[in-house]
Amino acid sequence: MLLALDTSTAKGSLALMQDDRVLAELALDAPGAYLQHLLPGVESLLAAAGRRLEEVTAMAVSQGPGNFTGLRLGLATAQGLAWALGCPLTAVSTLEILAAQIPCQPDPIAVLVDAKRQEVYLGLFRRRESEVEVLAAVERLPVTQLPRRLPGSAVLTGPALEVEELLLREILPPGLSWAPSELRYPQAATLARLGRLRLQRGLTIVPHLLQPAYLRPAL
Amino acid sequence: MLLALDTSTAKGSLALMQDDRVLAELALDAPGAYLQHLLPGVESLLAAAGRRLEEVTAMAVSQGPGNFTGLRLGLATAQGLAWALGCPLTAVSTLEILAAQIPCQPDPIAVLVDAKRQEVYLGLFRRRESEVEVLAAVERLPVTQLPRRLPGSAVLTGPALEVEELLLREILPPGLSWAPSELRYPQAATLARLGRLRLQRGLTIVPHLLQPAYLRPAL
Repeated sequence: MLLALDTSTAKGSLALMQDDRVLAELALDAPGAYLQHLLPGVESLLAAAGRRLEEVTAMAVSQGPGNFTGLRLGLATAQGLAWALGCPLTAVSTLEILAAQIPCQPDPIAVLVDAKRQEVYLGLFRRRESEVEVLAAVERLPVTQLPRRLPGSAVLTGPALEVEELLLREILPPGLSWAPSELRYPQAATLARLGRLRLQRGLTIVPHLLQPAYLRPAL
Repeated sequence: MLLALDTSTAKGSLALMQDDRVLAELALDAPGAYLQHLLPGVESLLAAAGRRLEEVTAMAVSQGPGNFTGLRLGLATAQGLAWALGCPLTAVSTLEILAAQIPCQPDPIAVLVDAKRQEVYLGLFRRRESEVEVLAAVERLPVTQLPRRLPGSAVLTGPALEVEELLLREILPPGLSWAPSELRYPQAATLARLGRLRLQRGLTIVPHLLQPAYLRPAL
């Protein structure tokens, strides 16, 4: 049974997966409340599914980039639990989770996560069966440089669509399509699914070596 | 706060939504277990989100077509709760929920739900912003007649893709794409989102008038 924690954006979520089935998913409150609500959230999630913490045999966590405090807390919690339970831990890029939420899509998927001060993290992906493949390395850049970096035809997704909506509507060409709003935040169910694939391939990380994925600004 | 119940297929689910945000979602066991697990599931869901039943102010339920017993139990439970709480109730077609889970899709979406005895329910939809529009009235027909009824280019989804996979792979043209497996069963979070839109438009139903959507076989 896999426990997945995503606290990488303003809207966190937790999920519990058994084999290929999501048993329960729970939304978390705003980042400021993670400190108080993360472990009680895990407890509520387990109770809702009628399971105990000892039954968790693997963990997956969002690695960012994203909200600084949320990520730190999510990683620390996942590291502590994986270490105490003695179970494997895997980390998934927040941008990859967001891209994987856009199915059946022939066009490239551009994931935008806000990086404060009118900057964004940009990841470009392409759908490939049940996963996504990376088209370009993640960049951190000013929002105003996006029109030059995006392909002519793409689906946009990610929390930055909300945070920078006015500016984006003004500067981006009209040919780009916007993902439905309910898919623009990472869902722990998607993290659980991607985490499971990584674990099946042996892609685990030693808990104390795990670091959030941050990037310096592009020069 | 909206409570959504979907027991229309072999994989039921429950969700709780506040405004436009899904607070918690819970998977239910196989249809045979609905009788025992549906109300305790609602209780676990509320507990996970830290809410009480009295805080539910609206209900949404999947109307089918789908699993006979599951649907009957889901509708009966939703009717009872809505009546006792005195809150509005809305019903959403199971096929529409499945179509709405395929975002950003220019091609028609063909939803296939198994109707036993090698028959399927077929619904044809097209994505339109955050919702879907109906392209053709729902039909019930033998699986073998599907090649004649499907458009040349479409995305297929629904539980029948698993149930009738071997036959479908054999008789359907290769140009059709198949939805990722995690989207082929209705999710109560999607039902909640569609139910909320219906309630905003005043599309409610008097609890005791609600009937499951079944269809006679096409002649």
